Amino acid sequence: MAVSMDDDVPLILTLDESGSNTSAPNEQLDREDLPNENGGSYDIVNDVSSPATGDYHSQQRSARHNWEMNYQEAAIYLQEGENNDKFFTHPKNAKALAAYLFVHNHLFYLMELITALLLLLLSLCEAPAVPILRLGIYIHATLELFALVVVVFELSMKMRWMGFYTYIRHKRTMVKTCVLLVQFVEAIVVLVRQTSHVRITRALRCIFLVDCRYCGAVRRNLRQIFQSLPPFIDILLLLLFFMVIFAILGFYLFSSNHSDPYFNTLENSLVNLFVLLTTSNFPDVMMPSYSRNPWSCVFFIVYLSIELYFIMNLLLAVVFDTFSDIEKRKFKSLLLHKRTAIQHAYRLLVSKQRPSGISFKQFEGLMRFYKPRMCARERYLTFKALNQSNTTLVSLKDFYNFYEVVGLKWKAKRNREHWFDDLPRTAFLIFKGINILVKSRAFQYAMYTVVAVNGIWILIQTFMLQGGNFFPRDVPWSYIVFLTIYGVELLLKTTGLGPIEYLSSGWNLFDFSVTLFAFLGLLALAFNMEPFYFIVVLRPLQLLRLFKLKKRYRNVLDTMFELFPRMASLGLTLLIFYYSFAIVGMEFFSGVVYPNCCNTSTVADAYRWVNNTVGNKTVVEEGYYYLNNFDNILNSFVTLFELTVVNDWYIIMEGVTSQTSHWSRLYFMIFYIVTMVVMTIIVAFILEAFVFRMNYTRKNQGSEEDNGIVLEKEIAKEEMAGVIELYRRNCAASEIAPLLKVIAQMDKYEQTSMLFLGRRSRTKSDLSMKMYEEEIQEWYEEHSRKEEYQWQEDVFPSGNRMLSSGLRQRSQTVT
Amino acid sequence: MAVSMDDDVPLILTLDESGSNTSAPNEQLDREDLPNENGGSYDIVNDVSSPATGDYHSQQRSARHNWEMNYQEAAIYLQEGENNDKFFTHPKNAKALAAYLFVHNHLFYLMELITALLLLLLSLCEAPAVPILRLGIYIHATLELFALVVVVFELSMKMRWMGFYTYIRHKRTMVKTCVLLVQFVEAIVVLVRQTSHVRITRALRCIFLVDCRYCGAVRRNLRQIFQSLPPFIDILLLLLFFMVIFAILGFYLFSSNHSDPYFNTLENSLVNLFVLLTTSNFPDVMMPSYSRNPWSCVFFIVYLSIELYFIMNLLLAVVFDTFSDIEKRKFKSLLLHKRTAIQHAYRLLVSKQRPSGISFKQFEGLMRFYKPRMCARERYLTFKALNQSNTTLVSLKDFYNFYEVVGLKWKAKRNREHWFDDLPRTAFLIFKGINILVKSRAFQYAMYTVVAVNGIWILIQTFMLQGGNFFPRDVPWSYIVFLTIYGVELLLKTTGLGPIEYLSSGWNLFDFSVTLFAFLGLLALAFNMEPFYFIVVLRPLQLLRLFKLKKRYRNVLDTMFELFPRMASLGLTLLIFYYSFAIVGMEFFSGVVYPNCCNTSTVADAYRWVNNTVGNKTVVEEGYYYLNNFDNILNSFVTLFELTVVNDWYIIMEGVTSQTSHWSRLYFMIFYIVTMVVMTIIVAFILEAFVFRMNYTRKNQGSEEDNGIVLEKEIAKEEMAGVIELYRRNCAASEIAPLLKVIAQMDKYEQTSMLFLGRRSRTKSDLSMKMYEEEIQEWYEEHSRKEEYQWQEDVFPSGNRMLSSGLRQRSQTVT
Repeated sequence: MAVSMDDDVPLILTLDESGSNTSAPNEQLDREDLPNENGGSYDIVNDVSSPATGDYHSQQRSARHNWEMNYQEAAIYLQEGENNDKFFTHPKNAKALAAYLFVHNHLFYLMELITALLLLLLSLCEAPAVPILRLGIYIHATLELFALVVVVFELSMKMRWMGFYTYIRHKRTMVKTCVLLVQFVEAIVVLVRQTSHVRITRALRCIFLVDCRYCGAVRRNLRQIFQSLPPFIDILLLLLFFMVIFAILGFYLFSSNHSDPYFNTLENSLVNLFVLLTTSNFPDVMMPSYSRNPWSCVFFIVYLSIELYFIMNLLLAVVFDTFSDIEKRKFKSLLLHKRTAIQHAYRLLVSKQRPSGISFKQFEGLMRFYKPRMCARERYLTFKALNQSNTTLVSLKDFYNFYEVVGLKWKAKRNREHWFDDLPRTAFLIFKGINILVKSRAFQYAMYTVVAVNGIWILIQTFMLQGGNFFPRDVPWSYIVFLTIYGVELLLKTTGLGPIEYLSSGWNLFDFSVTLFAFLGLLALAFNMEPFYFIVVLRPLQLLRLFKLKKRYRNVLDTMFELFPRMASLGLTLLIFYYSFAIVGMEFFSGVVYPNCCNTSTVADAYRWVNNTVGNKTVVEEGYYYLNNFDNILNSFVTLFELTVVNDWYIIMEGVTSQTSHWSRLYFMIFYIVTMVVMTIIVAFILEAFVFRMNYTRKNQGSEEDNGIVLEKEIAKEEMAGVIELYRRNCAASEIAPLLKVIAQMDKYEQTSMLFLGRRSRTKSDLSMKMYEEEIQEWYEEHSRKEEYQWQEDVFPSGNRMLSSGLRQRSQTVT
Repeated sequence: MAVSMDDDVPLILTLDESGSNTSAPNEQLDREDLPNENGGSYDIVNDVSSPATGDYHSQQRSARHNWEMNYQEAAIYLQEGENNDKFFTHPKNAKALAAYLFVHNHLFYLMELITALLLLLLSLCEAPAVPILRLGIYIHATLELFALVVVVFELSMKMRWMGFYTYIRHKRTMVKTCVLLVQFVEAIVVLVRQTSHVRITRALRCIFLVDCRYCGAVRRNLRQIFQSLPPFIDILLLLLFFMVIFAILGFYLFSSNHSDPYFNTLENSLVNLFVLLTTSNFPDVMMPSYSRNPWSCVFFIVYLSIELYFIMNLLLAVVFDTFSDIEKRKFKSLLLHKRTAIQHAYRLLVSKQRPSGISFKQFEGLMRFYKPRMCARERYLTFKALNQSNTTLVSLKDFYNFYEVVGLKWKAKRNREHWFDDLPRTAFLIFKGINILVKSRAFQYAMYTVVAVNGIWILIQTFMLQGGNFFPRDVPWSYIVFLTIYGVELLLKTTGLGPIEYLSSGWNLFDFSVTLFAFLGLLALAFNMEPFYFIVVLRPLQLLRLFKLKKRYRNVLDTMFELFPRMASLGLTLLIFYYSFAIVGMEFFSGVVYPNCCNTSTVADAYRWVNNTVGNKTVVEEGYYYLNNFDNILNSFVTLFELTVVNDWYIIMEGVTSQTSHWSRLYFMIFYIVTMVVMTIIVAFILEAFVFRMNYTRKNQGSEEDNGIVLEKEIAKEEMAGVIELYRRNCAASEIAPLLKVIAQMDKYEQTSMLFLGRRSRTKSDLSMKMYEEEIQEWYEEHSRKEEYQWQEDVFPSGNRMLSSGLRQRSQTVT
């Protein structure tokens, strides 16, 4: 009993050893709800101060080893919960664990990312290459082979971690493997033949990027797009159906008009109505028939009203609806996944002696694996924050808040309000004055006025210019005046608020950078550095500060910043589609379009390039559209962006079609539909995010301004001493130093305890938690009912395939 | 007591007469909660069967007169509640009442509508008139004066109804009066000068249409648009702000390029970025700079990403959010308004003797004014449906359901299932067989197959044609075959289901009309009636039937039909804006654009019309854009539609600008912004309606299919006899006939009672009621708290200005 009291034994391993005890661990927990025998003070102090004997030492070492394994596995569970990794890829034995640790590592992630990027960037140098980046076939094929070999290495490490069986069942990895094989074969073929063949498979390279750990957001977006597809396709069919009906109708009505090139065959009729859906050939497509019979406009008006103004909006509505539904379900599944992860981790951290909770010692062991860089003080504070009952143990219910609490950044609550509180009296008064001035409304409005005047000044100044190169040789005085004002403001604010507080506000950061840019612009002007003149032009961005004035703008801009990461990932997703289409476009259409290429087509004008000499003046008549080509990947990207914007895209399509075959249109149409999907998702996303936020503010009206999540915890001196004692036994001195500093600080201010503030910004997940508060309880109940069912299954031999068998295997191989 | 028991006295009038009893009527109701002394059977029987004396007669006549007045006023209250008319326009005396009754009349509404339409249609014949509709100045000016005089008459009637003071406070009517004055003066000026001057005020004519009773939906839309404006304008400013910044930036960056006409001045830069916002000059606007420096595309990509893909979507999000919020608030205020109306009506219908409810006699009196055309049987059924407690009186709580119940259409529940149940045995079996066949899945799927085959057939057939006039001289056999199949299907379904049941389904109605059209097309082909050939082309619409197959399509199409009225009113709203802009456009730009008009502008090509004779062939080189002009109102509408679709609209703008001044651009830009507002509202509306419906179905999953609202009520024979007795005393024989028929029917089938079904389609309001179920209770409570406050105010002399004083005045003048 003395041993079991002094040195905890993990609950799970014991279960494994005893063997006979097959009841579900959770039930066990409920039944063995023993009181904490130590009572009062923290475990950690008592645990380590007990005397040690020889036999006890070896026992202790084995127990400690078991604990270490449990800590690590619990940390892995928590990581899996956080990253939404499915538990069936959980490492099952020591070898797998080693591979897991190797694979889940920022260095490894970075390697993944770099190889993926290298593969993608190779397209810059391959066959239809960007001129200045062209590389020899040997060079780029070798580079490619090298990158592919690295990918093979990565995949083999993954297979080691997952095991062959799981590896095969993991779809994404299997697809990646197949693509890898194809790429390998093709790269070797290129090397052998010493010439590039049509390699459309290069379009699949983006899979390597998508599979990167850092591109989780892109994967989520793709999943969401695919989930939104079924309803999307339904409505798309409706759209196409009406298009076909109108195409037949248009063909019958207008093909008798020989001056109408748009409806002379059913195919043309279809293609032109498809283009009309994007409105990019309107009103031209209507004009020949309109000039013959004014009433023919009814056909086009009805078509556009149905297709563009009704069904297209319906499409958005359906996608938006699916999207918000998916968002909610995703939130739910993620929440429950995290909960399960926490349960798994909890089981591993609970000791046999005190099965009702986790002691700090165990928690500290977990955190050493989960967040190695967290300092001892923060670990203890996190533990205290979790521990809402204020006993020595964290119960499962408390532990459920793990993810919410672990992200908090802890700081000692300052005793002084301003940074200058410790300065001598005179300095203090000066700075205090500045502080009051800077925080006053008058100062703020004065600055707004200056900004507004500056904006009007710039506008008038620009309006007075009449073209040409306007950058003055001398620096204009107005520039200097305004910049001086901004500089003084910056100085006052920094000194008045202290640099840290000043820069902690996003708006101040913005002010700062704009002023900095203006200063750089001044330097550029003063020293005549022409290439940097564009900086001067950024001055009007100062005007953005005016938008602070109104609440709606603050709201909108805040939402904008909140949306930014998600928007960026959506943009990246779009870029990945671009990449694939760019590769396909380059393979088929590179070099197809050039000046005066399409003289036989209906869009010849746009591709014309004529150098007329009229009298003694050379007049260049230029259509410019030959610039929108697929000659290299950069050009392709620009062309694809033009296709995305949709206006006049049919000129590009017809140009290419007239030089190749009319099947090329398929490429453009498919691209249009794909971008339509992605764009609709983007719109739905912005809508959803914005409406969600508005609903949230409406629901929580009257509550305090949004400052993120803040938690306050107090630590007494004795507690601190206890923690230090624990660390002194177990760890290196480096960990103890910050703790001692805290004690020193307490001594300095003669306090018996110290207040700490934990702070983090509010995430979408927090908002959702609050929005769905009631439903979440239902989900939990439903989930725990299912859970129970699963626990019960675990009792039967067939039930404990995955988790417990994994555990058992590992404990056998390690101990 | 005998008198008061037999002949009820209205509660309100008595209150007025006694004077001393100043406590609030509602409180009175609560306190005087007398039990119903008749107990058991219905009032109406007892009420009229009492003996009558001479003195009693005059008393009774006066009471009856009072009752009649109360009935009428209650009916007016209920109408006001239904139409969302504010109570401050409630008629206050007998003169006002007469005027009210005159004004609230379908004949009057029709007159309003016709005069408004006449005024609008005059634009077809005035100065820049549609050629074939041109009228002399005398004629159209006289017509206009006539229409205006009618409007004056209408307004004077309204003033009689409202009283001068209320009339002046009623904003919409005041605006109308002012516009009327201006129109009058101008029409007279035109008549005197005998020539049309610049009459932009004609754009205001649409106010007459908007003010029509039948255009309530348009008014609601306009209100909603104006309510959505503030957030819209905020975001619009953000949009314009970025536009200005980018315009300055673009001017600095690109104006040094002399081959770039888009950025050579700040004004051009701004205009082109505005056009770029609509993407209609993309990629052309980028091309000159792109050909000089490929990296300049970054400027355009960033601009479009921020403006088009972010802020424009934000605009939609903000409008959508405001829109759904407004929808909910509108629903709330309408609901509470109706509730107040019901309370007012209830107060007038309750008798002094039985203040706890309304008896059928009173209810019948009300309905005679509220729905004069409702037959006696339906009135009684409505009363029974309201009366949930099954006593003789309808309490206030029951009466609150008035609007939900009064719309029900009552039908005796059929004893027979099919229309052919009464036929002889053989015929019955045959029809029964057809019925089973028609309802079988096999039959349905066979028909789907036929439709699909027909669709493919048409597609292939059309694809094989190569242009020209394809209508065959002979009727093709495939046409006859398919039409025969559809005809047989139609016949089978009609006979199997009975024509009434067949046509009660929207889908069957659709089938029927398409088949009918196909048949008409056949006739047109067979008898060579060329102008009707277009009917032949409608055949592919049969394919729409295939969309019945999938649930989502049924949902979408059902939503489509539900949305249709609202969509139509939104379309009408848009047309009203179109009208105003068309008038302004005609006044300024009529005759400005013609072939080869704009040779000095950048869009000269689009307006070119050259008749080149190359060899012996005449080649017409046509730009067609001169057709997009403002020469008459029809042309203007088409041009405005083209501007709405937005593509290439800058060609129209530049064409007009090159012929007039560069201020003309303002017209086009304002039009763009206005249509943007309306279009955003339309999108928001579709989104809202669709998402609402989806949420509704999600919330009520598993409930029965949506068949509208159905209520079942049973009437016993004795009850019927009582009702007949009541009517026999009071009314003409015509009202009793249908009641007697019911009795006769009961006798025929030897029933002692008869079941009736009340049915109406589900409206948005019903859905909202269910969606906001919980919140509605809160609203009611909040409302009744306010109500109470108001009742208390009524006790003080200053408090009862409007309602009770109106009542008092009237009862004084009438009695």
